[in-house]
Amino acid sequence: MASLRSWFSIPRGSHFSLANIPFGIISTASSTSPRVAVAIGDHALDLEAFAANNGFSALSTIQPHQAVFSQPSLNDFAALGRPIHSCVRKYIQRIFAVDTPYPNVLKNNSALQNLVLVPLKDIKAHLPFRIGDYTDFFAGRNHAYNCGVIFRGPTNALQPNYNHLPVGYHGRASSVVPSGTPIRRPNGQILLDPTAETKVPTFSPCRKLDIELELGAFVCGSNPQGEPIPVSKAEENLFGVVLMNDWSARDIQAWEYLPLGPFNAKNFGTTISTWVVLADALEPFKTKGLVNESEVLPYLKEKDEKTVYDINLEVDVKTSSGNITTMSKVNARNLMWSFPQMLAHHTITGCPLNPGDLLGSGTISGETSAEYGSFLEQSHNGKESISLNGGEQRKFLEDGDEITIRGVCGANEEALVGFGECVGRIEPALTLNFD
Amino acid sequence: MASLRSWFSIPRGSHFSLANIPFGIISTASSTSPRVAVAIGDHALDLEAFAANNGFSALSTIQPHQAVFSQPSLNDFAALGRPIHSCVRKYIQRIFAVDTPYPNVLKNNSALQNLVLVPLKDIKAHLPFRIGDYTDFFAGRNHAYNCGVIFRGPTNALQPNYNHLPVGYHGRASSVVPSGTPIRRPNGQILLDPTAETKVPTFSPCRKLDIELELGAFVCGSNPQGEPIPVSKAEENLFGVVLMNDWSARDIQAWEYLPLGPFNAKNFGTTISTWVVLADALEPFKTKGLVNESEVLPYLKEKDEKTVYDINLEVDVKTSSGNITTMSKVNARNLMWSFPQMLAHHTITGCPLNPGDLLGSGTISGETSAEYGSFLEQSHNGKESISLNGGEQRKFLEDGDEITIRGVCGANEEALVGFGECVGRIEPALTLNFD
Repeated sequence: MASLRSWFSIPRGSHFSLANIPFGIISTASSTSPRVAVAIGDHALDLEAFAANNGFSALSTIQPHQAVFSQPSLNDFAALGRPIHSCVRKYIQRIFAVDTPYPNVLKNNSALQNLVLVPLKDIKAHLPFRIGDYTDFFAGRNHAYNCGVIFRGPTNALQPNYNHLPVGYHGRASSVVPSGTPIRRPNGQILLDPTAETKVPTFSPCRKLDIELELGAFVCGSNPQGEPIPVSKAEENLFGVVLMNDWSARDIQAWEYLPLGPFNAKNFGTTISTWVVLADALEPFKTKGLVNESEVLPYLKEKDEKTVYDINLEVDVKTSSGNITTMSKVNARNLMWSFPQMLAHHTITGCPLNPGDLLGSGTISGETSAEYGSFLEQSHNGKESISLNGGEQRKFLEDGDEITIRGVCGANEEALVGFGECVGRIEPALTLNFD
Repeated sequence: MASLRSWFSIPRGSHFSLANIPFGIISTASSTSPRVAVAIGDHALDLEAFAANNGFSALSTIQPHQAVFSQPSLNDFAALGRPIHSCVRKYIQRIFAVDTPYPNVLKNNSALQNLVLVPLKDIKAHLPFRIGDYTDFFAGRNHAYNCGVIFRGPTNALQPNYNHLPVGYHGRASSVVPSGTPIRRPNGQILLDPTAETKVPTFSPCRKLDIELELGAFVCGSNPQGEPIPVSKAEENLFGVVLMNDWSARDIQAWEYLPLGPFNAKNFGTTISTWVVLADALEPFKTKGLVNESEVLPYLKEKDEKTVYDINLEVDVKTSSGNITTMSKVNARNLMWSFPQMLAHHTITGCPLNPGDLLGSGTISGETSAEYGSFLEQSHNGKESISLNGGEQRKFLEDGDEITIRGVCGANEEALVGFGECVGRIEPALTLNFD
């Protein structure tokens, strides 16, 4: 393997070191068709232009497939399979290595550099996948426990099924948006006094608008309907990971969710980071997740003990007055179910998955308040205020609040594997007139 | 309007009279690319071939859009909007009318008839839409009540939210299949003894495999994220209706559904009929639904009292020994929420809908056992046996059972507006090996 030092200027501390090479979909002012790119330092490498200019001349594997780089989503590239993703990533690492075996491709070709390397500040990053189906799990045991305590008390905080299967529900694919898209506060039905004998809802803008700090994994494989994917083959079917904020309307959820689960409380928006970190790039950061005290059924048993990722996650709140507070710092190892287990469980019935399907981890919370990945947990469902910098207080999100999630693996500032940012800002609810 | 009698032979009692003109996607042995067609009597009219041979010469409205008929789904046609669907349907009715104003287009052109009219027995009918998101509601109040009685007893059968909002959940779009596709019995986790103190699930083929008799409505419009569609404009955004069987694994559901709702119990298959009956064709059959005793919020209030459809539905069970029993006959008016209300509620948060999204009504049951649309209700969750013809008994579905749903509007055998059939046969569960 070539060095992970580069001839190209990659700022120290960049999330997009040579150890990473995340994939995304970009467009630019001068070339508005969305297409495939990778991020390197402060630049995007436009793979459509790179391929068109013989950038892949030394990688015969990809040559029959180069049309995938001109697609407006990663679906076709993902469908090529993990071995091809791996090849392309390693090739790009070699092209950029200080001791590249192919110096004439890019290192010594400043004309091509000018053509294919675009500063990140000059690109628009799009949704990386055309998402077929989106499923959200509940694999963050601490979060599940904290919510259970809030809604049912500590004795029955976790449902009896929790340790036996990765609880999940089908989410809304059409409202998944790329980082930076504003999120409008939803209107809906809320029950102002849940203790009243007669339960009559009020129509209102959501008053308990929340975040959920999650990871999302994109599927690259597929299974015929009726045929499960065993947990031992789940990894082959996972493309990579993004940061995710599954915005949640807690008051709408509390009223609507019986008996079929959350619906409108979750379907108005889910934000993901735009650069998908390949499973290969995360491989060195695998670690043990939360211990499951129950014996799981054989279809969920993994051979390796290290099945989740050591990713340092942070959530910043920026209020409209400009104060920024890091409200949560938590490691992504706080999951009790891994993505391979989620995928194996999802397909055990024969449910067909397809490239571009998105699996959410569920909210990731640690054991202390400063590690909770939602306002619901930090404010105990609005019972306590969270102190922000500048003397401001929050129980839930206010209009104008901007949430930024960051995530990064590793400590070596020259070899970070990071996700960039997942950002969304709350816009005021629409005033609706029904006359 | 031209006569609804045709120069073309349409069998008496056909679901596909001139009053109907449902749309679908077909292919044939000699022309394997899926494309748009309508059903007329025992034939499909291939609209790609019809358009290519100047069939639409007298309908200038559609001429700029004729490429939609060569698509492998109805998404692009649907996206043209209700006024265009209406025009095309009426034009086809005129072309086939005994007193057609355009006799030279098809009536007097036997060469074109041979080219574009294909017997239904010679076509393959495909999934009519590329389904973006699938949402399943719970609008059949009798079904909701019956399930509530089974699981919680009669005093709390309906949740407090039931009369205030159309309860729904996000379903799995990837496993929606066209009529005729076999359905494999899913494996999964079930709790054999729910009363045991220690709750440990068993891995097993589903033992309580069930049907759900539903209608499905396809969306043709779209809304920008953040902007609701008012109930008064919901109809403009609804393309048409199909029959639906939302196969359900009741034992998997009972164990998994807390706290986030059904997941694997519903994601292994949902069957729909292949000919989509346009909203226009159903307009004369609008009727009042079940009375809602609560005052609904303004965003759900409809002006018209007739908001659901008078469709006679039937469910047949054919066992592997060949016995056929009509297990249920029920009218589709047994819904308390209309599709426009479901659509308005779905989007009130700003959730974006798109052409090809599918909304399920929820199970349609009447007030008596012979009108129940699921085995769960008819067998009281397996407590009683259902007697079939030939002396067979059922509590839930057995391997080899074939379910056929039929639905038809009207009594005039020469002007029926029917849906054809929605058929699925149960295949045995896979035997899985986890060593």
